[in-house]
Amino acid sequence: MTAFPAKKDLPVNLARRYLEPGPIVLVSSFWQGKTNIMTLGWHTVLEFTPSLIGCLISSGNHSFAMIRDSGECVFNLPTTAITDTVVGIGNTSGADIDKFSHFGLTAAPAQQVKAPLIRECHANFECRLYDDVLIERYNFFIFEIVKAHAAPSPKHPETLHYTGDGVFMVSGKIISRRQQFRPEML
Amino acid sequence: MTAFPAKKDLPVNLARRYLEPGPIVLVSSFWQGKTNIMTLGWHTVLEFTPSLIGCLISSGNHSFAMIRDSGECVFNLPTTAITDTVVGIGNTSGADIDKFSHFGLTAAPAQQVKAPLIRECHANFECRLYDDVLIERYNFFIFEIVKAHAAPSPKHPETLHYTGDGVFMVSGKIISRRQQFRPEML
Repeated sequence: MTAFPAKKDLPVNLARRYLEPGPIVLVSSFWQGKTNIMTLGWHTVLEFTPSLIGCLISSGNHSFAMIRDSGECVFNLPTTAITDTVVGIGNTSGADIDKFSHFGLTAAPAQQVKAPLIRECHANFECRLYDDVLIERYNFFIFEIVKAHAAPSPKHPETLHYTGDGVFMVSGKIISRRQQFRPEML
Repeated sequence: MTAFPAKKDLPVNLARRYLEPGPIVLVSSFWQGKTNIMTLGWHTVLEFTPSLIGCLISSGNHSFAMIRDSGECVFNLPTTAITDTVVGIGNTSGADIDKFSHFGLTAAPAQQVKAPLIRECHANFECRLYDDVLIERYNFFIFEIVKAHAAPSPKHPETLHYTGDGVFMVSGKIISRRQQFRPEML
């Protein structure tokens, strides 16, 4: 496991390969000269083209206003290689600390948004706010993934899936049933 | 692995324990004397209390109108014990077959909704439509979980997480970092 997985461009409609399984993601943001990172487990794919995702960002999070006001963020996919960092990020607030420096994470410039990529993550999805219709009522943001980067290897990294109560399930082992799918269902 | 996991009542706000990790679920429905089942991977927790979940049900699914018109469904959590059944359900349409009988699944009555529980699943979440505001624009349904049932054992069953392309990741192995969480964060 290298500290900086080497990434390539990924077609944005393939983001589902990484997000649909439901992993914890690290959401990075930038607003008025400052960055922040939060953990997020409440998200879903909404559409392939445009590549839409929806997610719940509680208004209690320091990131909430930064993301709402900038209309941008990056979904970064961590693996079990940085489990303790993920836990630390989820248990601290950007109101108190600079999370990149505190956790020794490396910010890299994104292409389409001002929020930074986290280099230690397996994949990065640059997001732009697509529809704010449910932000006020549910804190639910609808983003378009405008640029995607992913490490080609390993193809199925060990990801973290939060169950509450401090416990994560780990995905990584796979089952293929490709032969049982009709081509148009793949 | 018994064919019918023995279930107990679960407080509805603990549904996140099973749904937040992002597994494929089997969504059962009932409308005008007929039942149906679909696979669903595009869902997210939205709130603990009330216990809200959001999900994307494409209007191309036979279940779409049944669920929209009845305003009800059940989220059933399958495990790897019935992987092939999950694949079969996702690759067939309720317009052509009766999925309960075709796949040899057992319907049990729910308590709060008319849609049936699938007994072979590890957990069942009875859902009532809570807000239809995004159905027309995104096919996005917001449900309240009004009753939850779950097998106490195993505590972390092997669940299926779809990546597209006929490939599922499997969760089951866990990592606990409970000691690193402040009590109010659990």
